[in-house]
Amino acid sequence: MFVRMTSRAIHIGQMCEKKLRVLLDMDQVLADFELGFFQEYRKKFPDYPYIEMQDRVGFFVKDQYEKMFSYIPNIGNAVAKIYKTKKFFLNLPEIEGAVDAAKMLAKMEGVDVFICTSPIEKYKYCLAEKYEWVDKHLGPEWVGRIILTKDKTMANGHLLIDDKVDITGAIERPSWEHVVFSANHNMKTDIGKRRRLDNWTNGDWKELIEDFKMRI
Amino acid sequence: MFVRMTSRAIHIGQMCEKKLRVLLDMDQVLADFELGFFQEYRKKFPDYPYIEMQDRVGFFVKDQYEKMFSYIPNIGNAVAKIYKTKKFFLNLPEIEGAVDAAKMLAKMEGVDVFICTSPIEKYKYCLAEKYEWVDKHLGPEWVGRIILTKDKTMANGHLLIDDKVDITGAIERPSWEHVVFSANHNMKTDIGKRRRLDNWTNGDWKELIEDFKMRI
Repeated sequence: MFVRMTSRAIHIGQMCEKKLRVLLDMDQVLADFELGFFQEYRKKFPDYPYIEMQDRVGFFVKDQYEKMFSYIPNIGNAVAKIYKTKKFFLNLPEIEGAVDAAKMLAKMEGVDVFICTSPIEKYKYCLAEKYEWVDKHLGPEWVGRIILTKDKTMANGHLLIDDKVDITGAIERPSWEHVVFSANHNMKTDIGKRRRLDNWTNGDWKELIEDFKMRI
Repeated sequence: MFVRMTSRAIHIGQMCEKKLRVLLDMDQVLADFELGFFQEYRKKFPDYPYIEMQDRVGFFVKDQYEKMFSYIPNIGNAVAKIYKTKKFFLNLPEIEGAVDAAKMLAKMEGVDVFICTSPIEKYKYCLAEKYEWVDKHLGPEWVGRIILTKDKTMANGHLLIDDKVDITGAIERPSWEHVVFSANHNMKTDIGKRRRLDNWTNGDWKELIEDFKMRI
């Protein structure tokens, strides 16, 4: 009798177990879009003016370049050419500590991790290269964790770690709470009451996750 | 005073407005994977045995071929070769009436439509070709409605129209109710208490949507 009760209790416990579903943005949270862009832009357009990485303001690099260098015809096209080029997304470097942290996160008890990423409008290379990047840096088992969507409010997670400050979509109150991953472009942006995660290296992410685990 | 009250009432009305979020699966709901497969398989392997489309049973075409023609070495590879080939996904024909119905659905008041689709494991061509298919058949504004995910339980909709009977993932009780879109392969499958949508042509889908709109 005792054995049967224990067995049932374990079964009920498993049924009720709720895992924290963490959504990790890809560009600027796992893959360093800004560094990749800067390096390629300087290489491809060495005579063009540029914005130092620490001076980047606002989410879209193209917007800032067009505003600052409006005297150069087609500066926007030059910028866009960089990230529309084959292998740009594939060759992006890692954000420091991101891959190790993501792997640790995925091994944590009570946590399900997904990569929630939006493709650029010119999706020809970007889509498969995002998958390849994940495959190469995190491993093939991570490919099944990718959620590609322009509208991140549609992803049913508890926590979204994302460097983009304004994330809107079909759902006015998404299931997730947005934690802003710090990047040069958002350091001066008002993020209201939201929390920040500054990096993957000082260990703060572990406390953040433990805190969220307590709250679901 | 009257004007101000009216204005506020409208504002509150808009705030409370909840749209029905419909997730449409792609293969066999919008794009005819089975027909595309059958035609290409017959063309590429005219001497191989085949399964008539009306005799397809079970979600994975490869599984049934391997089971029925186990005496042919590498029959599974031959099958997989079809859908791993460049332009296979791009050239899939439309499911009858699907594109017109989807366009009408997207124009219905109180409805938000998304395309929720899982890529095949060999994602090299499949990803961009799914986007291209949507672009070509439904229009460029539909590309932003694509949610590519292996785990559809992670998509936060109210209704998922999908021909796959077993849809599981990280969330045991997804936000959506699954309506099974009829296909040859699922006609003999027990779908429990779930509803079916048999086609896009007889107008039943409109009643289904109106019914769901009442329930959210």
